Amino acid sequence: MIQLTLPDGSIRTYESGVTGRQIAESISMGLARNALSISVNGIVWDLSRPITSDAKIAIHTWNDVEGKATYWHSSAHLMAEAIEALYPGTLFGIGPAIEQGFYYDVDPGPDRKLTSEDLPKIEAKMVELAKRDVPFVRNEVGKSDADTYFREKGDPYKLELIEGLQDGEITFYTQGNFTDLCRGPHIPSTGAIKAIKLQAVAGAYWRGKETNPMMTRIYGITFPKKSELEAHLARLEEAKKRDHRKLGKELELFTFSEKVGMGLPLWLPKGAVLRDTLVEFLKKAQSEAGYSPVVTPHIGSKTLYVTSGHYEKYGKDSFQPIATPNEGEEYLLKPMNCPHHCEIYKAKPRSYRDLPIRFAEFGTVYRYEQSGELHGLTRVRGFTQDDAHLFCRPDQLSDEFKKVIDLVLYVFTKLGFEDYTAQISLRDPENRGKYIGTDEVWEKAEQAIIDAVAEKGLPAITEYGEAAFYGPKLDFMVRDAIGRKWQLGTIQVDYNLPERFELEYTGADNQKHRPVMIHRAPFGSLERFVAVLIEHCAGNFPVWLAPVQAIVLPITDAQNDYAHQVVKTLQAAGFRAEFDERSEKVGKKIREAELQKIPFMLVVGKQEAENHTVAVRKHGEGDIGVKTVAEFSMMLHELVNV
Amino acid sequence: MIQLTLPDGSIRTYESGVTGRQIAESISMGLARNALSISVNGIVWDLSRPITSDAKIAIHTWNDVEGKATYWHSSAHLMAEAIEALYPGTLFGIGPAIEQGFYYDVDPGPDRKLTSEDLPKIEAKMVELAKRDVPFVRNEVGKSDADTYFREKGDPYKLELIEGLQDGEITFYTQGNFTDLCRGPHIPSTGAIKAIKLQAVAGAYWRGKETNPMMTRIYGITFPKKSELEAHLARLEEAKKRDHRKLGKELELFTFSEKVGMGLPLWLPKGAVLRDTLVEFLKKAQSEAGYSPVVTPHIGSKTLYVTSGHYEKYGKDSFQPIATPNEGEEYLLKPMNCPHHCEIYKAKPRSYRDLPIRFAEFGTVYRYEQSGELHGLTRVRGFTQDDAHLFCRPDQLSDEFKKVIDLVLYVFTKLGFEDYTAQISLRDPENRGKYIGTDEVWEKAEQAIIDAVAEKGLPAITEYGEAAFYGPKLDFMVRDAIGRKWQLGTIQVDYNLPERFELEYTGADNQKHRPVMIHRAPFGSLERFVAVLIEHCAGNFPVWLAPVQAIVLPITDAQNDYAHQVVKTLQAAGFRAEFDERSEKVGKKIREAELQKIPFMLVVGKQEAENHTVAVRKHGEGDIGVKTVAEFSMMLHELVNV
Repeated sequence: MIQLTLPDGSIRTYESGVTGRQIAESISMGLARNALSISVNGIVWDLSRPITSDAKIAIHTWNDVEGKATYWHSSAHLMAEAIEALYPGTLFGIGPAIEQGFYYDVDPGPDRKLTSEDLPKIEAKMVELAKRDVPFVRNEVGKSDADTYFREKGDPYKLELIEGLQDGEITFYTQGNFTDLCRGPHIPSTGAIKAIKLQAVAGAYWRGKETNPMMTRIYGITFPKKSELEAHLARLEEAKKRDHRKLGKELELFTFSEKVGMGLPLWLPKGAVLRDTLVEFLKKAQSEAGYSPVVTPHIGSKTLYVTSGHYEKYGKDSFQPIATPNEGEEYLLKPMNCPHHCEIYKAKPRSYRDLPIRFAEFGTVYRYEQSGELHGLTRVRGFTQDDAHLFCRPDQLSDEFKKVIDLVLYVFTKLGFEDYTAQISLRDPENRGKYIGTDEVWEKAEQAIIDAVAEKGLPAITEYGEAAFYGPKLDFMVRDAIGRKWQLGTIQVDYNLPERFELEYTGADNQKHRPVMIHRAPFGSLERFVAVLIEHCAGNFPVWLAPVQAIVLPITDAQNDYAHQVVKTLQAAGFRAEFDERSEKVGKKIREAELQKIPFMLVVGKQEAENHTVAVRKHGEGDIGVKTVAEFSMMLHELVNV
Repeated sequence: MIQLTLPDGSIRTYESGVTGRQIAESISMGLARNALSISVNGIVWDLSRPITSDAKIAIHTWNDVEGKATYWHSSAHLMAEAIEALYPGTLFGIGPAIEQGFYYDVDPGPDRKLTSEDLPKIEAKMVELAKRDVPFVRNEVGKSDADTYFREKGDPYKLELIEGLQDGEITFYTQGNFTDLCRGPHIPSTGAIKAIKLQAVAGAYWRGKETNPMMTRIYGITFPKKSELEAHLARLEEAKKRDHRKLGKELELFTFSEKVGMGLPLWLPKGAVLRDTLVEFLKKAQSEAGYSPVVTPHIGSKTLYVTSGHYEKYGKDSFQPIATPNEGEEYLLKPMNCPHHCEIYKAKPRSYRDLPIRFAEFGTVYRYEQSGELHGLTRVRGFTQDDAHLFCRPDQLSDEFKKVIDLVLYVFTKLGFEDYTAQISLRDPENRGKYIGTDEVWEKAEQAIIDAVAEKGLPAITEYGEAAFYGPKLDFMVRDAIGRKWQLGTIQVDYNLPERFELEYTGADNQKHRPVMIHRAPFGSLERFVAVLIEHCAGNFPVWLAPVQAIVLPITDAQNDYAHQVVKTLQAAGFRAEFDERSEKVGKKIREAELQKIPFMLVVGKQEAENHTVAVRKHGEGDIGVKTVAEFSMMLHELVNV
């Protein structure tokens, strides 16, 4: 008998040789129906493999990452079978599962091309093959047998792969007429694959090497239910509509210029207003929470970063030093604000009574990224952190950390992100050498985070190896309106920089002590936050954030004077109001204001001008009635002061 | 007879050989008494030199720059005479007038040192010599005679100077027992020098060359009246007290750090609040004036500055290019915001109906300065311009320029600078090659400025050769509370960048046209402006700008709760209030709040806590009575909303 430990810690006893499928059946028929693979001591196996010794196990279904990966990898084999059936002689490279679906790199031969036009045909064949519901069968194969098989088949790619494998570790998987060299695991049979979508064809060098032949990569995704595929495609469509790069252009929020440089956003007037409004919002919250603003330059001498350790760690991969024409100085674009804030801390002697000190700065930093990695506002080379550094006594750390959590959650809630989780990022226990600082200070810092999260009852996962090199951190993830997760804010504990900068305060005991530092940024960066916000609300910003809150649309030029007066009244009341004074049909003006996602359109015709009213249309909803300017103003006031 | 033209354009006829003194006497005895020198066709002469042909003349007194220069240069000779009398054998280098006073570089010989301790003695000797009221006598001397004289005297410095002169152009001046090689001119006699102050001793290389011997430079200043010297010394004392570097430290506004780098200010919390308040003030004024905010990065690719012409003009003397670790890119720290704003202009097609477009940005720029040139916040390597660029049609230029003048004057007035003048900076007519752009566009731009200034009735002077390389400008000078002049804001017309960036708009004629650009910055830079403001108001900022507007001072700890409540009430009302909760005597707290120049101190004792009142002390004035918190809040509200 063997003893198997389940994820909940319970232990079950089975006869040696029991399979994943049998274990699932022993737990419930529902689980047996849905099981796709099983982890045995952390390695994912087929459900049909016999287990012969004590182990930790976890049965995987569609609802977990491992289950999905098994399912999609099996779908790649199914696609290969379909391609071989349709285009005999096709050669196969590798076909892994990816985050969303799978691909297979194939070589259709010199005389044939596979294009997106072929995809429906392959898809149809896959559906036909899946319906046969044949099992995926695992076979251990000797190296020479494996070699013989693919030599006879004439597939040089698989032969190359076999060459790199040890005899005794080679397995083949077969379903129907298709046999592949594969480590596995696979789902029990093809019948589980119910909904199939092949998405794209691209070129990819064999094994990623530019000197190797170019293969044809075919991307696909599959689901156990038709409805899930439909939901997935709808989500993709929705994500495309919400793409912040597309909306950023349409709503005139930001742009890029080749002459200025890649990954360096230029904020257009409406984007600058949005950004400013976010900054003002956070400044107010920070001021109430006892933060002090500071302003520091965007460069620092190389010495500053040698002191902080950034130069040693990132110097080579960063924007290179800036020389001066005389005096032989070297400066660096600042990649972080913390060293500057440490120097401000040092500007005068500090006493235990002065702490905690909280320096806040909307600090623009520059970090080099390869141009191929750049993406809209989410991956840029220059961005503004809503940064702050808290210097506190060790006895204040826990309280301060919790207050920061409160502030982060306040920001998320105010901005409509109600679904958030946190990730506690700790050291990699296997590789402690890559972190600076002693074990002792790391353990204290890690524990402070763990305790604060527990006390706040924050939904959190713990990840080992995800800490910054200078300290552990708590990262916040939000889920947007269409279910995607984004990493935003971060809180980090740091015992190292105070050491490196020799920061001190005089304690009640009249001795010198070292403060602890907290780095924190609720938005993370304004650029990334705005990108996520755009995609979250599809450009329909909450009224208090909308760059234009109301636009006045006169029906004819005869109402221009009145319209102008309405705009002035609203602007004087502190609202961002505009006036479309073009001599265009009001229908066109309304359509364009809708596209601009302006929350309120105030149509004014002869009657409105006479009665000092406005006919209010709400974005996406239409007419909400005629109001006096004062009534509308009051309504707006209530919406803005949430 | 000769005809002499006076500065007012009137022409007077004199006999040939008339002297400046005689001309002064012919005009008025008062003028004769005060005359110090005379300009003859733009060259300053002694009053005793005969004039023998028609000329433009101007008689100089203490009230003009040329008169002062003559007076101080003669004072340098007087000092040399005193030094020679006291320390025979001293050798003399050069002794010019400077902006405020004069100096003489002397060599006391290898066995003697002149230090600040010698100054009173020299000063006394000068007074004694001046009282003798002997004339400064001019003699034309042949080169060999001049050489013989100083060879006999044994002064190698003068010999070196004579070596570089042409025979026939050498003059000596003698007063009393002292004869100097000197081009002149001088005042009539030593008796005019009534009040003398020798200020400092410093080292200076002979002729400024490091390889030459080090001489002793003695600085002094003299006045025709004792009262003027006293006023001067008082002004110096006052300026020292107002020095923004001193106050910046005492009031904790900003600091510098060697590790961050020279000339790169770090704004401390109180300075950051001051800065933010200025920014908010100008943002509001700009928003009302139709400006649109934009935000751009602090670097730009080298191409951007090659296009703008900055690279060619300043590249070598600037912070050097920033390389990337891969991809071979080159970036520059931005020295100006205009190229970025041009790229924003180009982000979409513009129509004549869209103009004027006004992009405003508080843009931080970086310009390399030699470390020796750096000075507090007035000469830095990184500063934030309150920048804006207006893109307009040629027919809008004049109106836009005038609106900008209005905005600049509004800013000055609101900030308490009521004494301002403007300088129209045009091309150097002698050296047009150093400017970019055609004569035609320069003339248009220059005329637009001249017309706008005339129409606004602005007090202005015109300076040739002071234009930027890309266009003419209007610079604003303010006079501070102790009479010093500072250059602040600037408005510049630019026909060149639109050309270089190929900016366009579609006209009513459906053709492409080129817009005109206006660069403008009312403050100039926040750093410089804050420095000037500090020195202007001696750190006593107007209440709306004060980093801390009121501080609550409990008399004993028993009032701490009440004091805290008062602070919270004031903060909730939007005021910047603080609380001195240290267990110190209230007298000490008041003294420190006075030093911090906090406008209002609210003392709260037992009675105030019971009656919900505060005993208000105004900075520099003392007790102004007991008020309820609401009364005080209302008073503050009125002061802040000026």
